Amino acid sequence: MTEQTSAPVLSDTPRTRHRRLREQGSLNRADLDAVLAAGFVCHLGVVVDGSPMVVPTVYGVDGNTLYLHGSVAGRSMVASPQDVVCVTVTHVDGLVLARSVFEHGVNYRSAMIYGVPRAVTDPKEKLTGLRVLTEHIAPGQWEYARQPSRKELAATALLALSLAEASVKLRSGPPEDGDGSDAALGLWAGVLPLHSAWGSPEPDPALAGGIPVPAHLAALARKRARGRDVQG
Amino acid sequence: MTEQTSAPVLSDTPRTRHRRLREQGSLNRADLDAVLAAGFVCHLGVVVDGSPMVVPTVYGVDGNTLYLHGSVAGRSMVASPQDVVCVTVTHVDGLVLARSVFEHGVNYRSAMIYGVPRAVTDPKEKLTGLRVLTEHIAPGQWEYARQPSRKELAATALLALSLAEASVKLRSGPPEDGDGSDAALGLWAGVLPLHSAWGSPEPDPALAGGIPVPAHLAALARKRARGRDVQG
Repeated sequence: MTEQTSAPVLSDTPRTRHRRLREQGSLNRADLDAVLAAGFVCHLGVVVDGSPMVVPTVYGVDGNTLYLHGSVAGRSMVASPQDVVCVTVTHVDGLVLARSVFEHGVNYRSAMIYGVPRAVTDPKEKLTGLRVLTEHIAPGQWEYARQPSRKELAATALLALSLAEASVKLRSGPPEDGDGSDAALGLWAGVLPLHSAWGSPEPDPALAGGIPVPAHLAALARKRARGRDVQG
Repeated sequence: MTEQTSAPVLSDTPRTRHRRLREQGSLNRADLDAVLAAGFVCHLGVVVDGSPMVVPTVYGVDGNTLYLHGSVAGRSMVASPQDVVCVTVTHVDGLVLARSVFEHGVNYRSAMIYGVPRAVTDPKEKLTGLRVLTEHIAPGQWEYARQPSRKELAATALLALSLAEASVKLRSGPPEDGDGSDAALGLWAGVLPLHSAWGSPEPDPALAGGIPVPAHLAALARKRARGRDVQG
């Protein structure tokens, strides 16, 4: 019981149950939060006229709610506001280079969230959601930049999705054929890690001289992206 | 005519037509090839029991065919081999930090491919497809590693998808509010670039001593990932 309290279990539905054995599945809320915190772009899957459509968009998290920028999928969102969507967030951490091609793979962290999104229409909640989204991506930017006008707010499509039905899949560590017969082949095996990192801020060429990079963006640029070390 | 010959136009169907004005859409085959060449993980969208399911998987390109590792989506692939899928490949290049929250965005390159995938069952084509996939991800690795046995080949799910129906969306460059009224606010604006880079190869702890990193993997590790510069 104590363990369940400290690691809340997400819903275990047929859609979120893990079918494969070789990757680790997780229904822990902490793992979900970690994957979502490590990125800001998701892939939103919707069904349009019976066919899937997968579009990248930005997101932010507020408690049990995922806010999604909805305009990239404007067409589908308007077409079917009652339908289930699937939101997937994936971080690729490296190539798993085994002795055999068969054991090759990818180290990754991925979250899948299912639910019926709610189009946010109330201007106050829309403002809150946009703040959550902006602060998730670039903390400090909401207070620094000019906040949306009423007209801009009306022109912005925002979706809210519950995090209740979600699952996480992870793979990490070396290849798995180190103790099999292939180990005797004498081949190199290991992981080629893939890192993400912010570069130096690039000022808009239209920027008037003498405007410094604000402290919160300089701090973000220094921060290692996705919580990973960087090797240039 | 000459221009069309040098830049083949992809299909222009309702699904691939671009609806938004602010991003650049492209139906050029060269742009599609460039986006596919710059990565190796896609998001595969399928419809399962009427709901979308978006799973990350690896891919390789051979002419007009995209080969996808299909086992991560084994369930859905087996369930509906006749259905259209949507494969999306996205590279996030940076944050667009404008004067106004409304003009914020992401610099990115993204390709969407629609089609009915074909499950590759012929062992010879499966071997070819796996070679294409392996060489796309880590050139030289197919010849270096132990190639799949007949049994391993049978246990591998591979999908082939035509690149005929595809589109590309791109955004690059600075924010777009440098010449509007917000320019007078005196706020910093620009782009915070996001880079991907390979780290140093990490040997499998189970590896016997004295096995060096092979030249093709050392070369890959030195290569700047996704064709972008790296700043640590």
